[in-house]
Amino acid sequence: MSKMLPKVLAFDVFGTVVDWHGSIANEVTRLGLPVDSNAFATAWRDGYKPAMARVRSGELGWTKIDDLHRLILDEVLDKFKIDSMSEAQKQDLNFIWHRLQPWADSVQGLTRLKQKFTIVTLSNGNLSLLANMAKSAGLPWDLILSAEVFHHYKPDPETYLGVAATFDVMPQEVMLVAAHKDDLQSAHQLGLQTAFIERPKEFGPTHLRNDLYKEEWIDYHSSDFNALADILAC
Amino acid sequence: MSKMLPKVLAFDVFGTVVDWHGSIANEVTRLGLPVDSNAFATAWRDGYKPAMARVRSGELGWTKIDDLHRLILDEVLDKFKIDSMSEAQKQDLNFIWHRLQPWADSVQGLTRLKQKFTIVTLSNGNLSLLANMAKSAGLPWDLILSAEVFHHYKPDPETYLGVAATFDVMPQEVMLVAAHKDDLQSAHQLGLQTAFIERPKEFGPTHLRNDLYKEEWIDYHSSDFNALADILAC
Repeated sequence: MSKMLPKVLAFDVFGTVVDWHGSIANEVTRLGLPVDSNAFATAWRDGYKPAMARVRSGELGWTKIDDLHRLILDEVLDKFKIDSMSEAQKQDLNFIWHRLQPWADSVQGLTRLKQKFTIVTLSNGNLSLLANMAKSAGLPWDLILSAEVFHHYKPDPETYLGVAATFDVMPQEVMLVAAHKDDLQSAHQLGLQTAFIERPKEFGPTHLRNDLYKEEWIDYHSSDFNALADILAC
Repeated sequence: MSKMLPKVLAFDVFGTVVDWHGSIANEVTRLGLPVDSNAFATAWRDGYKPAMARVRSGELGWTKIDDLHRLILDEVLDKFKIDSMSEAQKQDLNFIWHRLQPWADSVQGLTRLKQKFTIVTLSNGNLSLLANMAKSAGLPWDLILSAEVFHHYKPDPETYLGVAATFDVMPQEVMLVAAHKDDLQSAHQLGLQTAFIERPKEFGPTHLRNDLYKEEWIDYHSSDFNALADILAC
């Protein structure tokens, strides 16, 4: 690897740092909702990209993810025919996204990477969501950056290039770390370095991901954050 | 004190959390510049509010504090007749603002307050400055918020109200913690709670502040962050 090392590592969060599927399925089970908890988690997440697309296209004005999650939740509760929840209970369930659990390696791996690099989030999640998550999960970010800061959702270029502008560095001095190849592809096309993290159970234990193979254009490919810290000699 | 407790504590940073005067004076001494280090620090800071006023009035487009600090530094170097510094040396000196030292109570006090409240910055410093400072000084922010996020400098209302909007809370659920009464006054007028912190040596050891008396309209008055944590039962 003859490339220079990046200065800033920007992390995708949902799926890459935290286990949204498992956290939501566990919450649904804990609440005793009469549904398949894995199907419920999947349905909620399935509404995510279409909801953001409505903001990206201009159909909706700027809307933070908390509010998009709530719009989707109301549709999912309707789909699963759950009409027993109070408004307060719905609000609390919606905030499960603020309490998502990290993958087993996340805190240790980030703590190692932080010794050598500036580590930041680059997430479509809103600032309060990411701050509450960092506090409850113990994620040691140097800076929380969000689509909310740039008023653009990934994969709009303003987000990836916004990280570089925030730190007054060139795009190639930033590396996006993500479990999603489409996110990495967008960053790569703008000149950022890229690291893929395998998260085979992102969509739950019964739907293992089958797209974890290496790609020639991705700079680093790691099983988890500790393996990335090993490669980067942290 | 019959008021409800706030949920979010928003901290002014320069002077309130970190000792800009002492840090700059020490750096000037370390570099061996042939000037009165206290006068140099004072002159640099004196350019701060006029520079921001040019942005607030619209005379300058949005300009981050790093760039304003550099504009002022060039004027100060000229005023003090220092023409021996290379461009790299000037850039490094400008970044002393990223390496300001915290007051002796800051890290411990913030760590205590963080147990009970969401603690965030509300500073005119740019995001990278505040992130680098937090990393070098060990400041345990839950979230770094900056004028850079709102594209408005304090005391524009968008900054104080922006904290409340970020966390979806009412202005009175946010408390500004600052060593400056004008900053607190602006927050107070918008409905935020206020806490004044005495920082007698903010302007250096030879110019002790004489405006540290209590004000009827300020909700809490503390000698330092540990004293504030005591009052707030953290």
